[in-house]
Amino acid sequence: MIKVVLLGFGNINSHLIKAFHKSKAISVVHVFNRSSIVLDSTFSHTPVTNKIEDIEDADVYIIGISDDAIASFSESLQFENKLVVHTSGGVSMDLLANKNRRGVFYPLQTFSKQKQVDFSNIPICIEAENPNDLKLLQSLGEIISETVEEIPSEKRAKLHLAAVFVNNFVNYLYIIGEDILSKENISFNLLKPLIKETAAKIEDLNPEAAQTGPAKRNDTKTIEKHLSLIENDSHKEVYKMITEQLKKHWK
Amino acid sequence: MIKVVLLGFGNINSHLIKAFHKSKAISVVHVFNRSSIVLDSTFSHTPVTNKIEDIEDADVYIIGISDDAIASFSESLQFENKLVVHTSGGVSMDLLANKNRRGVFYPLQTFSKQKQVDFSNIPICIEAENPNDLKLLQSLGEIISETVEEIPSEKRAKLHLAAVFVNNFVNYLYIIGEDILSKENISFNLLKPLIKETAAKIEDLNPEAAQTGPAKRNDTKTIEKHLSLIENDSHKEVYKMITEQLKKHWK
Repeated sequence: MIKVVLLGFGNINSHLIKAFHKSKAISVVHVFNRSSIVLDSTFSHTPVTNKIEDIEDADVYIIGISDDAIASFSESLQFENKLVVHTSGGVSMDLLANKNRRGVFYPLQTFSKQKQVDFSNIPICIEAENPNDLKLLQSLGEIISETVEEIPSEKRAKLHLAAVFVNNFVNYLYIIGEDILSKENISFNLLKPLIKETAAKIEDLNPEAAQTGPAKRNDTKTIEKHLSLIENDSHKEVYKMITEQLKKHWK
Repeated sequence: MIKVVLLGFGNINSHLIKAFHKSKAISVVHVFNRSSIVLDSTFSHTPVTNKIEDIEDADVYIIGISDDAIASFSESLQFENKLVVHTSGGVSMDLLANKNRRGVFYPLQTFSKQKQVDFSNIPICIEAENPNDLKLLQSLGEIISETVEEIPSEKRAKLHLAAVFVNNFVNYLYIIGEDILSKENISFNLLKPLIKETAAKIEDLNPEAAQTGPAKRNDTKTIEKHLSLIENDSHKEVYKMITEQLKKHWK
């Protein structure tokens, strides 16, 4: 039985508690959150506190708070020599206060409060200062996910960077797509099968092989036509820039 | 029974023949292609020709060739007053030669030869000069797909433009993601669940609600860190540009 304390109850930890709850091999013994929270009735047996001095004993303490707050929050913890991990893609392990044994437990996924996720498909990227802690994080990860990989901080930073391109930036292109259609009173639903297939395609093909479109084939006529159709200057800048990059890439 | 002739056998028509073949209500009576082709054994009963003067009689002729060639090819057809449609998102209906009855049958999806698709989920955007032809295209569309919409050329151009953002440009961001990881010897597979979830999310949330990331929350520290991590100048330009647009968007 791995005893876990969740520190902070934002997007990641509020999803982690659900995944942990499914396994008898994990017990969430305490949830700390600065402001008062009420847990879902499923977890009503799990004690909650907003007092940092009350945090109970556990095998691993999982910090799920905003990147900027991780360093000072880990410093404020009142215990020592425990395994304390954060869940951030972009924060180096050594930003954690060194009075505790440090580690990282980073689920590589996008989390929103409103949207359920299946942890079994989510890669968990782990890191720890010492081999026993790494083993414990490996075990913890394997209980909820099929993919657990040891990724050191430097590589994790690159992974997080790549994630920004394929998640945040991709979603911004969805926003642009929706905006273009809404101006024409065309339902965004028409684009959803294309969006789904674009993502599904790279399960079988690498992105290079999956690339299509006017920029790849240097179809100047279509590109000019598109530019003349775009009314929003920001969208036009994005269109021009990515088209130029794609043309360069395929030359 | 709707009799169909396929003109050209590129990405779209080679997928359409499979979808049509599944229905007893549609008969592909002839496939024309400029260069010689051999059909898959499933369709070996379907006659193939590379002589434009040999094309057989049908209810609808579906042109599936490159955008630039549609106008002159439709002019070269040796029959008149038949229903001739193209399958392109970006080409106006009236670019078809007017000696025939003109129409459009545009499946809004990304097609690659190597990747099977399920037409039932693909929106078919139709257009025709006269109501009877529109009805026939509606029937033809409904046999293979759950979504058939009448979309005039002007709106279809906008739809095609939006499709470039959410498909071609999105895939380019996948290419960047893969490139960043390959330089670190990290498997692109780690990003696939995130890519899938990013696309799946907008089934439940609109893209505005689904947006996350450092640019949205104006997290200057992470943005600066990312810029320092990007080695490729093209990637850096894309990162800067989309981050700026996202910041503007959320201000």
